[in-house]
Amino acid sequence: MRIEPLVVCGFAVVSATAGTAETDLFRDVEGYRSTHEVPIVGQLADLTHMRSIAADPAGLSAAADLLVAQLKQRGFAANRWQVEGAAAPLVFAQLNTAGARRTVVFYAHYDGQPVTPSQWSSDPFVPVMKDGASEHDVDWKSARAKLDPEWRLFGRAVADDKASIVAFLAAFDALKATGHKPSINIKVVWEGEEEAGSPHLAQILRDHEGLLSSDLWLVGDAPVHQSGRAMLYFGARGVVGLRITIYGPVKALHDGHYGNWVPNPAAMAAQLIAQMRSGDGRVLIPGFSDGIRPLTPDEREQISRLPRIEPTLQKQFEIGGAESDEDLATSLMRPALNVRGLRSGQVGDAAANAIPTEAEISIDFRLVPDQTPEGVRKAVESFLKSKGWTLLNEPPDAATRAAHPRLILLQWEPGYPALRSSISTPAAQAVIATASRAARTSVAVMPMMGASVPLYLFADIFHEPVIGLPIVNYDDNQHAANENLRLGNLWSGIETYAYMMAGLRW
Amino acid sequence: MRIEPLVVCGFAVVSATAGTAETDLFRDVEGYRSTHEVPIVGQLADLTHMRSIAADPAGLSAAADLLVAQLKQRGFAANRWQVEGAAAPLVFAQLNTAGARRTVVFYAHYDGQPVTPSQWSSDPFVPVMKDGASEHDVDWKSARAKLDPEWRLFGRAVADDKASIVAFLAAFDALKATGHKPSINIKVVWEGEEEAGSPHLAQILRDHEGLLSSDLWLVGDAPVHQSGRAMLYFGARGVVGLRITIYGPVKALHDGHYGNWVPNPAAMAAQLIAQMRSGDGRVLIPGFSDGIRPLTPDEREQISRLPRIEPTLQKQFEIGGAESDEDLATSLMRPALNVRGLRSGQVGDAAANAIPTEAEISIDFRLVPDQTPEGVRKAVESFLKSKGWTLLNEPPDAATRAAHPRLILLQWEPGYPALRSSISTPAAQAVIATASRAARTSVAVMPMMGASVPLYLFADIFHEPVIGLPIVNYDDNQHAANENLRLGNLWSGIETYAYMMAGLRW
Repeated sequence: MRIEPLVVCGFAVVSATAGTAETDLFRDVEGYRSTHEVPIVGQLADLTHMRSIAADPAGLSAAADLLVAQLKQRGFAANRWQVEGAAAPLVFAQLNTAGARRTVVFYAHYDGQPVTPSQWSSDPFVPVMKDGASEHDVDWKSARAKLDPEWRLFGRAVADDKASIVAFLAAFDALKATGHKPSINIKVVWEGEEEAGSPHLAQILRDHEGLLSSDLWLVGDAPVHQSGRAMLYFGARGVVGLRITIYGPVKALHDGHYGNWVPNPAAMAAQLIAQMRSGDGRVLIPGFSDGIRPLTPDEREQISRLPRIEPTLQKQFEIGGAESDEDLATSLMRPALNVRGLRSGQVGDAAANAIPTEAEISIDFRLVPDQTPEGVRKAVESFLKSKGWTLLNEPPDAATRAAHPRLILLQWEPGYPALRSSISTPAAQAVIATASRAARTSVAVMPMMGASVPLYLFADIFHEPVIGLPIVNYDDNQHAANENLRLGNLWSGIETYAYMMAGLRW
Repeated sequence: MRIEPLVVCGFAVVSATAGTAETDLFRDVEGYRSTHEVPIVGQLADLTHMRSIAADPAGLSAAADLLVAQLKQRGFAANRWQVEGAAAPLVFAQLNTAGARRTVVFYAHYDGQPVTPSQWSSDPFVPVMKDGASEHDVDWKSARAKLDPEWRLFGRAVADDKASIVAFLAAFDALKATGHKPSINIKVVWEGEEEAGSPHLAQILRDHEGLLSSDLWLVGDAPVHQSGRAMLYFGARGVVGLRITIYGPVKALHDGHYGNWVPNPAAMAAQLIAQMRSGDGRVLIPGFSDGIRPLTPDEREQISRLPRIEPTLQKQFEIGGAESDEDLATSLMRPALNVRGLRSGQVGDAAANAIPTEAEISIDFRLVPDQTPEGVRKAVESFLKSKGWTLLNEPPDAATRAAHPRLILLQWEPGYPALRSSISTPAAQAVIATASRAARTSVAVMPMMGASVPLYLFADIFHEPVIGLPIVNYDDNQHAANENLRLGNLWSGIETYAYMMAGLRW
């Protein structure tokens, strides 16, 4: 289970011109990787073996220890930062580069989503390589030739985010082995509570504000563009979850004897959703969209340049059309009301001719700048009151039930706002150019990712640019069963990280 | 488990005037009942002991055998009628009365709803008597004084409909014991598949049309009015069930990355329900209400005379208001779209930030004259097509999914139409008058019951009046756990049946 650093020698001096150095860098990193594929994948497999999930605090702690050791062996000053009540420590490390003008923090998380092993084809913590096409198991450890970039390694957190951590380490090893000196001072923040909603991240960051000073944050979370094109993202939608319970009669009642007179909570739930959300996904709640900041012409331009992947996705998801008449990326620039779940009474063979006692709705709102979870909450609650609902914080007692015709229990989950940061800062321009050189093509620039990552937190506390640097395949089943990483994405990820460490200048 | 007839002697001749005979009848039946309470309840307990539910064909058959024996011992010509494929026989019996002008068929069913024993406070097939107020168990078999009419006997089918069967038998015994001759020829139809939707009833009735000829059907199903007032009903709403499945993406998708673009089946289900049904329960589907026959002035008059029980029910059901601004009975005269269940994705702690793959809706439509299940189906399907849905008979394959943006699977359950028969026929007037004499007050007249009983079938085949003669308490938990019968309702039910057998003339 130990991960040995592949290279521990010092950096050679790179004396060529920048152009030549860049050519050398690509050739050297690719050369290093192609001769170290099995041990690199071995590092990822070993890390995936560790049970670093919220249900296993010992697994989280052991993973943090391993990562600290790995960083120390590579010459980093590395520590575990633990705060009261946190389930996992944050791994911090730094390594200064003589003469470097800029400091970059590389963020990723080493914890994974919870698992439901029965839904997996193999043990989530025993990584298995599969031939992408046939899904046959592959004995990659004995491979003599180069590994097929279409092969995929399966395991919890292998893509989200352990691949980014291993790409970072392998890139660093490649630079050392081939004598390329970093162009920046490097800091590392690897979090262990991201999948639990980062409940202590703000506190840890604030506690160590001085040590974390930098010029840029690069966030190694989320997948690349669905086209496979390398991508950077300059923000992410915010999120706030809401659990709704609507109350009907205190006991289920025969709907023949009472239907049309006793209120039906399932029908009320449906009415409520239809009042809040139009058929094409527009949120109809008054005030909800107040203060939404429009996209800049620059951002719109970047979106228009994104590869068109809608037909491919429609085929893959087996959907006959989209909900809106916009392309995917444009749709994601809007706030969303996603219905995660609905439950009332029974369906199928279990259905009884009964008016259910309650209906549950699970929603998440995706926010865009400058919405806030508080503003969304206020708009939703005002709307519900205007529709005659009595808002509850806990299940109603008999007197409350009898006194009010429309009872609704709201349970708000913790949330956070969106971030959409500038694409035109010098740091942003340098990252775009460097990533494009690594990818040997212009990278896709996503002004804001549809999914939520608490990027706002880094921006709020440090007021430095925050840029998302994803490397993994989009069809990685992250958060689901059979999470997997396509090897080709790890290869290009190593190149990307190597360029960010040794080629980034502004 | 054998039920011994309480009385086997012959009928004495009643020679008094009608008025005197009526007074005698009430006194005699009450006198008989009050001195035979424990054995009468014993009959009901023994019958409730029998596992006559669809899951137990042997239990159904044994119950039918017992009932045939009971009827034969009382002098009836009794048979089991069984058709190919039926899970249970129908018990038929007849007994002619010398000089009687009219023949009445007494219908009830001896099968019970399925049970979920874990939801019951006691074994559904081991009847337990409870003190109504404290819900303490009562040792009724050892009771020396009269049984408390507020006591309740708990067990599956005890109220729905075994109480009607035992009330019939006890009434017959009381008449025999006290020398009252029936005023009618009596036929008995006790069905064993009612709770399974009476799938073979039409065939059996048609096969024996000649033997079943009569002047009136009295249907001993359903509870009395919620006020406790004795009630007759002259019809029942029809019903047709519909299971709907709406399809989203073929696998659950991260709603951050895809929400607002990939269609959300939970939101689509909510939209659809809101399009079909208004907040106050009106059905919005064009054509659905075509051909609805308005209530007659007579029917409206009877409804206006029903006791007002809305405040009591609101308190008991713990609801702060009704769905419509009408009283309960008026609401039930309308057709209904009842949402029995909703299911999509996950709620509560299990909710994932995902777009669900499908949504299920379970609906029943309650029909009024002259709607038909076929007409409802046609209206619903036309409406769905007009809204752009592609209708499916089976789950879609990948090609179907990809070809159509809005896919909906419809699974129609067997259904039947409503019946609302005339209150003003001579037979109807005679039954109302006779039931009122038995109850010593004017009975409530419900033109049509909200719940569905296939009364239309008797009317369709035999073209004779069909009147519902309920006796059990409305809060009997029929179709649910802890089904129970209030003893006072059995006592008054015996009187009602005695009057229908010995006092009904027109």
